[in-house]
Amino acid sequence: MKKAKKSGGSSKEKQNSLLELLKQQGLLTYDTLEKGEFPKFSIPSRSVSNIVYDSKLRQYILGKNAALRSSKNTSQLRSFTQLMWLAFFANRLTKEKKSSTLRDVYYSSQAFAIDFEDQSESDNIIVDLEAVLARPREDFHVFPEERSSVFGDLNIEYTVPGYEGKKMNLSNHPDGYAIGPSLTSAELLDTSAEVVIAIEKGGLFTRFVEEQVDKKFKAIIVDTGGQAPRSTRTLLKRLHEELSLPVVILTDGDVYGEHIAMVIKSGSANAAHLRELTVPDAKWVGVWATDIEKYKLPTIPMTESDIKRCYDLQKDPRYQEGIWKKELEVFLKIKRKAELEAFSKYGLTNITDKYLPHKLEVAKSL
Amino acid sequence: MKKAKKSGGSSKEKQNSLLELLKQQGLLTYDTLEKGEFPKFSIPSRSVSNIVYDSKLRQYILGKNAALRSSKNTSQLRSFTQLMWLAFFANRLTKEKKSSTLRDVYYSSQAFAIDFEDQSESDNIIVDLEAVLARPREDFHVFPEERSSVFGDLNIEYTVPGYEGKKMNLSNHPDGYAIGPSLTSAELLDTSAEVVIAIEKGGLFTRFVEEQVDKKFKAIIVDTGGQAPRSTRTLLKRLHEELSLPVVILTDGDVYGEHIAMVIKSGSANAAHLRELTVPDAKWVGVWATDIEKYKLPTIPMTESDIKRCYDLQKDPRYQEGIWKKELEVFLKIKRKAELEAFSKYGLTNITDKYLPHKLEVAKSL
Repeated sequence: MKKAKKSGGSSKEKQNSLLELLKQQGLLTYDTLEKGEFPKFSIPSRSVSNIVYDSKLRQYILGKNAALRSSKNTSQLRSFTQLMWLAFFANRLTKEKKSSTLRDVYYSSQAFAIDFEDQSESDNIIVDLEAVLARPREDFHVFPEERSSVFGDLNIEYTVPGYEGKKMNLSNHPDGYAIGPSLTSAELLDTSAEVVIAIEKGGLFTRFVEEQVDKKFKAIIVDTGGQAPRSTRTLLKRLHEELSLPVVILTDGDVYGEHIAMVIKSGSANAAHLRELTVPDAKWVGVWATDIEKYKLPTIPMTESDIKRCYDLQKDPRYQEGIWKKELEVFLKIKRKAELEAFSKYGLTNITDKYLPHKLEVAKSL
Repeated sequence: MKKAKKSGGSSKEKQNSLLELLKQQGLLTYDTLEKGEFPKFSIPSRSVSNIVYDSKLRQYILGKNAALRSSKNTSQLRSFTQLMWLAFFANRLTKEKKSSTLRDVYYSSQAFAIDFEDQSESDNIIVDLEAVLARPREDFHVFPEERSSVFGDLNIEYTVPGYEGKKMNLSNHPDGYAIGPSLTSAELLDTSAEVVIAIEKGGLFTRFVEEQVDKKFKAIIVDTGGQAPRSTRTLLKRLHEELSLPVVILTDGDVYGEHIAMVIKSGSANAAHLRELTVPDAKWVGVWATDIEKYKLPTIPMTESDIKRCYDLQKDPRYQEGIWKKELEVFLKIKRKAELEAFSKYGLTNITDKYLPHKLEVAKSL
């Protein structure tokens, strides 16, 4: 069994450092008031001109521009107040260990007579607070609605109220364990696994469990359920960092599949203020455009929107080299795409018997 | 602990009776051939004119019309062959206990040089086989892609290969257990729960677990993740029938929420040939249109498409009485809708502290 490194990924450490950050922010406000000045926030700018791709970190980051949001400026007073309230509410959620969602926060504001036009206005302020604290909203207990699942020989220890100290091995329920706030905030203890396999679809996830991919390949299997939810990406990062497990990703053989893998690897431009949602070492192992010909897979023609998406991604700095560039080119050349289930043409277990072991080998040289 | 009735809901009994049905179908084909006649299938008609609402069963059912699909008729030979192949393939999946999806079946056909134009053609043939056997496709191991989750003091025993005889209590992982083929086919053993609460959203599911709704109200909590997937509806039916648990449903306060509840209760017209996907005694307890005023909930205006949907449902025989009729009328009158999270206006736990206990009382008189 491989033991986890302590990396501050569990909720206990996160919670304490988050509360400390909020406290500092509060003290700053008090100090400013005592000096007879107007309190303000300094918010890293998330405007397009301040988002740059960092090739060393292998993700988008924010540049050095920051904007002041001051209570002195009447045009900023509204959003200043919203942000101040949110910091207060985040502190409370974190202390009381209550989970919430973006939508909950929007409606909760009404209890405090804080005015948001609609949910998108409060969503924006939540991202502002993420940027101010440089911490993802899950750290202050705002969690995504979506749930994907995980399965494998991984021991965890919960930190959520009512379950503190309880341990769980995630290999006993073959349909998988939902990845929600409890799993996201659990301590990762140890594992016998040597690799994490993230797969795009529930049906294939079940196939993988059924064919004992976890045992045969010493793998933890993660169902991303299409585009991986933030909680799932956070778990993938923690499995990689705390347990030093390589992460490989299997998607449908199309431009959307390629981008699902890229988002797991390097996040998205609108989360450029965060570092917790990326696994820069994650490897996309298939289904590649080049696999379509190689394995003579049944295909579907690409739609106009698939083709447009390819051209869009070709302008993205992350698609300028290696397989990312090459596979986009091949998709555009063949104008066909293939689903993961296409391997069923060769029998239901062909994907786990032949394709997967080959691709796990290939991953080592990527 | 309440023990489960044996109702044939687990996979062992289902599998044997399904294989028997397929065998009979095969014998019939052989007999026909030996008589020197062309083999054929008799398929209950799923045309609109043959779908009727049965107010006693409280769901849509098929009338008495059936169509012959004969290998004698050249225009039917293609679909006859597809159906015959599918019966063969279903037999194999069931015997080998391999799970698959609609998409897997489509691609698998290519291994046997069976020609389907596209997946929708094979999906149709799968529904034909459901109708011929009067059994849901999950019984012959074709499962949905979607996964929702469940949490509560429920003991189950798996029947899937590799896990046969293993028992599990579903109250140890607070993010919930994914509902896939293993859970769908497991034996339900016993429970201390007295009610099943199905809720539309992952965030609320987590809130309910966090606020110990399972303990305080002796409940099994099911996240439907929007429109409940077929596996989830099957599980709800089994919890109701085998453990005699009442099922209550909480959705957003809008026409789509009302219909999510209705589909759990009485299925849909295009599954009129099945009985396994409905819980006719399930009760929709909220959020009702009348709750919006009663609880002074924050609302959102209904869109044109919400309003059109209300008018459409008013023509549906299931919306002709009781709360189903009344709430549609109120939605159309107020032209506003409210989300479950709207209760957060009164504090995050208002929904579990106040609204839920009240609605569980109301459910008793529905």
